[in-house]
Amino acid sequence: MGIRVDWRSSCSLTGTVLKWLAVPLAVPLVLAVFDGDGPLAFVAAIVATVVVGIALERLSDDRDLGQREAFLMVALTWFGVAAIGSIPFALVGLGAPSASAFSTSVGGLVNAAFESTSGLTTTGATVMSGWDFENQSRAILLWRQLIQWLGGLGILIVAIGLLSNLMVGGAQLMETETQTRNVRKLRPHLDETARLIWGLYVGLTALAAGTFYALHLLGAAPNMDLFNAVSHALTSVATAGFSPEPESVGAFEPIVQWAVMPFMILGATNFVLLYYITQGDIRQPLQSEEFRFYVGVLVSLSALIAAILWIDPATDGTLEQTVRHGLFNVVSLVTTTGYASTDFGLWPAGATYLLFFSMFIGGMAGSTTCSIKSLRWLVTLKAFRRNLFTSIHPEAVRPLRLGNTVVDEETIRDIYAYVLLAIVIFFLLTVFVVVDAARASTAVTEFEAIGASASIFLNIGPAFGQFGPMDNYAGFSTATRTVMIVMMWIGRIEIIPVLVLLTPAFWKS
Amino acid sequence: MGIRVDWRSSCSLTGTVLKWLAVPLAVPLVLAVFDGDGPLAFVAAIVATVVVGIALERLSDDRDLGQREAFLMVALTWFGVAAIGSIPFALVGLGAPSASAFSTSVGGLVNAAFESTSGLTTTGATVMSGWDFENQSRAILLWRQLIQWLGGLGILIVAIGLLSNLMVGGAQLMETETQTRNVRKLRPHLDETARLIWGLYVGLTALAAGTFYALHLLGAAPNMDLFNAVSHALTSVATAGFSPEPESVGAFEPIVQWAVMPFMILGATNFVLLYYITQGDIRQPLQSEEFRFYVGVLVSLSALIAAILWIDPATDGTLEQTVRHGLFNVVSLVTTTGYASTDFGLWPAGATYLLFFSMFIGGMAGSTTCSIKSLRWLVTLKAFRRNLFTSIHPEAVRPLRLGNTVVDEETIRDIYAYVLLAIVIFFLLTVFVVVDAARASTAVTEFEAIGASASIFLNIGPAFGQFGPMDNYAGFSTATRTVMIVMMWIGRIEIIPVLVLLTPAFWKS
Ligand SMILES: [K+]
Ligand SMILES: [K+]
Repeated sequence: MGIRVDWRSSCSLTGTVLKWLAVPLAVPLVLAVFDGDGPLAFVAAIVATVVVGIALERLSDDRDLGQREAFLMVALTWFGVAAIGSIPFALVGLGAPSASAFSTSVGGLVNAAFESTSGLTTTGATVMSGWDFENQSRAILLWRQLIQWLGGLGILIVAIGLLSNLMVGGAQLMETETQTRNVRKLRPHLDETARLIWGLYVGLTALAAGTFYALHLLGAAPNMDLFNAVSHALTSVATAGFSPEPESVGAFEPIVQWAVMPFMILGATNFVLLYYITQGDIRQPLQSEEFRFYVGVLVSLSALIAAILWIDPATDGTLEQTVRHGLFNVVSLVTTTGYASTDFGLWPAGATYLLFFSMFIGGMAGSTTCSIKSLRWLVTLKAFRRNLFTSIHPEAVRPLRLGNTVVDEETIRDIYAYVLLAIVIFFLLTVFVVVDAARASTAVTEFEAIGASASIFLNIGPAFGQFGPMDNYAGFSTATRTVMIVMMWIGRIEIIPVLVLLTPAFWKS
Repeated sequence: MGIRVDWRSSCSLTGTVLKWLAVPLAVPLVLAVFDGDGPLAFVAAIVATVVVGIALERLSDDRDLGQREAFLMVALTWFGVAAIGSIPFALVGLGAPSASAFSTSVGGLVNAAFESTSGLTTTGATVMSGWDFENQSRAILLWRQLIQWLGGLGILIVAIGLLSNLMVGGAQLMETETQTRNVRKLRPHLDETARLIWGLYVGLTALAAGTFYALHLLGAAPNMDLFNAVSHALTSVATAGFSPEPESVGAFEPIVQWAVMPFMILGATNFVLLYYITQGDIRQPLQSEEFRFYVGVLVSLSALIAAILWIDPATDGTLEQTVRHGLFNVVSLVTTTGYASTDFGLWPAGATYLLFFSMFIGGMAGSTTCSIKSLRWLVTLKAFRRNLFTSIHPEAVRPLRLGNTVVDEETIRDIYAYVLLAIVIFFLLTVFVVVDAARASTAVTEFEAIGASASIFLNIGPAFGQFGPMDNYAGFSTATRTVMIVMMWIGRIEIIPVLVLLTPAFWKS
């Protein structure tokens, strides 16, 4: 058991991250100056992050983290960056007109924290009203996009890099599936792994921005200007979902919607597989059971939804429209991006519900995706099948295989526990949401509460009814929005790093 | 691995059960004759069950069942009794007016199977319209009640008696918790265990009927005549929920509602604990962690709902009414009975949703309760807590205790698997229900589909909206009602005995 948790080391590493947060914060600062908007909000955030960062960094020289220190560092970093990231939103609320979501009232400050946390956790649920979308500066809108991109990068580094062994079950299997260990042998140093991920992530983002802007230059997408192209590149590769457009990707031409889909799909693909693809090795993805599962889910759910839309008498549309809307919104929710090509809240209940169902699946482990993830579901389903066998042959020993490797029993148990824990916490969140709505006399239906809770905790973004993709979360009480901030944070860093902080055993020797 | 499954033995034992089904079928037959109603429906069912029963019984002399034969026998018995039990409902449909749920159309025959399966599985979801409640004979209404009581008895025998080791995780733990092994030592023979359960079950039913009828004789419950007293005794102790009254227990005086509650609570209490109580040993229930969990859930959920009803401006009521309705409906849904004291579909979303949440919990293992059951949740929650500990101390070995006993790791994994499997199947059922509603152009909202699916698969009974406690399931398409019949069957016999029949390994050597 050993010694007390070395919280100083955790804080120190978090401090380093916060110090470097000044660099991305400089981007909207430059845009604010360029656009002639007030730069104060970003200057303040930069000063705060450098001061807090350096102060924390000085707490310790020891950068070697144990298991507990790593949990603490992950939890602290997501908390710290979200807190600093909310400063620009809080400051635009100074003297803002009452139509703005951001103000200096308690509710307004909670909104600033909500928007920042929703950004960093790549959730993409917004509290911004139509007024905000029209009247906030481009700098603020860009900061929303940028913090999502940073959140995606952060989770990639945690999932594949240094801390991979902390992610329940997933990491060990991801290595198995993709032979990451071989990658590691090739590139044994953490720095190199991080650089590899960073290169892929930046390259994919640049490719997305280039593709979107090319459509504009070719005249196929008049309103996809450079700002929009970059903004959507940042949040599609990060499977994050914020858009500077109040109507999300629905504001753009069909060809743009088709162009966005591959980047959401790639953003939710294991980055180690993407690395193999860039090396010209196409057999790796084809051999990956998880990849086939992920693609199979996308195809079958979109086909089902397209069929429902096609036969629904109240939903008009050409075949192209029906297929596109079915595919786009399934891709968006399975990858946990949360863009919308149309207001799916208006769809018939069957189609809406399938989208809700899609939320729980998630893309591949080792990507920017959120939710439960295909890998965990794949192992769960295989373990179910095996359970049926062993219930009639209790004496049989039947190892569970993924690809060529045997999954060990503890990993299976931990994956069961993780999936179940996620569903139980989602359930408890729904209970809080409906009970608090009753307390605050907010009119929230049961399915709105269920949809919003899933969307928040699984880091999707939009939900249904009054919390649909063309609407926002400002309708929830301040208490509910505060709890949702916490739940986005817990969901994004995969529950355990936060929950363990609540156990006495974490802090005692 | 051994030999092929000995399906003849399974069929033979099922045959014996079917043969004896003639005895309870004689009860409504006598009532039909007494009331001057046509006895044909029951005569036909008796002839069918005796013929089929004896034919099946002759298939084998070997009454020693292995694991697989026991699974098959349980699945067959519930199927066979439900099929025979539907004959009276099907036959009253001969020449029935179009207002009746039962007719000789496909939909009408499905309704007969639905009502019978819903009865035997102690679900209590009905397809009977207001017309049926007013116009069906007392004999038919009594058969509905009686088949529920038989279903409760059957599940008790499976859960505590011969087949206890087949129920995933639950049985081993139930023995642990309640020291059933000691009971067995005292009474080593299966026959004695069955007789013990039978005695308790009959005694409890008689006590319930006596209590309800006493209220009538004392003038406190004018419409609780002998027929109603017996009818409600049969389905409260079986936590089953059918009522000959279209308004369920809401049709009776408040004092009746108070009187019904203890019998639902006792019906969902482990019968081994009840045995100890009859022996004057009150320490056993107080020491049982599961019992305390079960009572804690009942108290906290009812308090929460009562508070919501109390502060809701749209819901009027005295303090007694508020407390009674909160407690009654929570007790009804946690025990999986499915009675209603009022139309909770009219309640605010917060209260309705908490009732939905209540459905997933269930009463104690070793009782007539359905759903997931308190014991499994208790182990799951304890295992979650331990997981947090081991995720920071991976090297630590920390056995999970229930009472004074260590729960073994395989049991924990199997319980995780069971709870997750139940939730996944529930989810898949919701998908079927909404997709089929879209196909059939039935107007079913998302939450109605979710509520009805939970209620059917967890064997509760009523759901919400148009499938609320004062309504019925006739609004679903024939396809959906057919799938629901299958799901009630799967849910009641705890999933595994049915699913294993679908694996090739079950039928091969
Ligand atoms: K998202
Ligand atoms: K029931």
